[in-house]
Amino acid sequence: MQLEIAIVQFKPTLFDIKGNLQKAINIIHEIITSSNPKVILFPELFLSGYTFKDRKELDAVSFPISIQDGKNESLAPLIDISKKMSIGISGGYSEKDGDLFYNSSFFIGDGQIIANYRKTHLFHDENDYFQPGDTGFQVFEYNNVKFGMMICFDWIFPESARTLALMGSEVILHPANLVLPFCQRAMYARAIENRVFIATANRVGKEVNGKYENSFTGGSQIVSPRGEYILTMNEDGEYFSSVKIDPTEADDKNITEKSNLFKARREEFYR
Amino acid sequence: MQLEIAIVQFKPTLFDIKGNLQKAINIIHEIITSSNPKVILFPELFLSGYTFKDRKELDAVSFPISIQDGKNESLAPLIDISKKMSIGISGGYSEKDGDLFYNSSFFIGDGQIIANYRKTHLFHDENDYFQPGDTGFQVFEYNNVKFGMMICFDWIFPESARTLALMGSEVILHPANLVLPFCQRAMYARAIENRVFIATANRVGKEVNGKYENSFTGGSQIVSPRGEYILTMNEDGEYFSSVKIDPTEADDKNITEKSNLFKARREEFYR
Repeated sequence: MQLEIAIVQFKPTLFDIKGNLQKAINIIHEIITSSNPKVILFPELFLSGYTFKDRKELDAVSFPISIQDGKNESLAPLIDISKKMSIGISGGYSEKDGDLFYNSSFFIGDGQIIANYRKTHLFHDENDYFQPGDTGFQVFEYNNVKFGMMICFDWIFPESARTLALMGSEVILHPANLVLPFCQRAMYARAIENRVFIATANRVGKEVNGKYENSFTGGSQIVSPRGEYILTMNEDGEYFSSVKIDPTEADDKNITEKSNLFKARREEFYR
Repeated sequence: MQLEIAIVQFKPTLFDIKGNLQKAINIIHEIITSSNPKVILFPELFLSGYTFKDRKELDAVSFPISIQDGKNESLAPLIDISKKMSIGISGGYSEKDGDLFYNSSFFIGDGQIIANYRKTHLFHDENDYFQPGDTGFQVFEYNNVKFGMMICFDWIFPESARTLALMGSEVILHPANLVLPFCQRAMYARAIENRVFIATANRVGKEVNGKYENSFTGGSQIVSPRGEYILTMNEDGEYFSSVKIDPTEADDKNITEKSNLFKARREEFYR
């Protein structure tokens, strides 16, 4: 089976949720003009930007989501194009739930909100205004492919990708706003140890908000279950690109015919 | 605090346990002539070689060990030099326990057998003649440094190094007979995600025994908690080399001042 998956390396304008959404729509039109991906992945918080001073600033760019009714005013243009083109669109946003905010990612498939994940492991200043995610890791099916979601800093905890893989993920969607230099190189291990595809859509650019400042490391990539970097982007610059993968490659956990990475686990000895 | 640690990239002669032991002793003498390491690490099964046809062959090069009395005829020359030089010596051997065999590693410190670990995750053909280890991962103290042990294929299970790190390991001793090409590169992630030192002593050469054949990948290395490859060896050739590290660097699990990799774990969401 074949899945064409696109990742977008993106630089949002801080606070400009409408402008960023329009830019994303324009990029999707460009992508589907030049290629035929079934899934398009944007970075973490690609609609709002990342560098907030406080919860008040965050409030202005946050919105609630409902999987139940599958509708969402803020995401309506993405839902529309997803329905019209029969594609999946995923990316990160700031989710508002009552008075609380989560660093979340959505998956919209064929016009429906199929999944919503709240980031489990918050990074650094995010702890000051986001709540730690309470959804846990989730796996969902779209187009007969099992997808899992993790967000940015979740990567450094081996338990994140491990949990998603044990739950059956064939392709892990990993929107990111990486500022540390480690992840891109380390995902080699994540892909091999779990024998899954991992797509990391990272943002680029420098973002300044008063005394707060972040520089993002780009290098968006897709790594195969054999540790091949089948798609890589530069550290700087906005790009989109797609690649065809066979997600069922991730179903074979045998690293040799006598060594199955999942059956050989010995949970009784793990902390 | 400072620890000088040496790793030995070694090619044993299959079945020649006495010859391999003498060669190891000669290497130790060479090492302590040219440097001053407190711990010297040899590869997995460095006394016997690796490529066995059956349990009968294995039996001829296996021996029991006892931590209680701290004595061992087979390891006596290593115990003696460890005592004489006040050093620690670690490496892999085939352990006999009644009718059963384990792929084990010992740690001898200042003339005493301080630790013995039985490989948790057997690789490929090892399943045909070794028992899966029943000791679990262990951490022990020597020279005020907390050491953990894992053996070769244990590396690919993120739970191995994770468990050792959560148990307090500052330095993971990783004797190996690697035949797959993944480990050396992937240990970058292991070191960073756990913020520990990992010393991998791998063997080299090609070993043929009837229809069985293995080629080993060398590339012995030590990686720091920041993912720096502070010691690396070639894919081929026998070498020894040592490096000075500060094991207490591994006690700081803060990757930023607000993000502690161990405190931020959320076990309730892990499988």
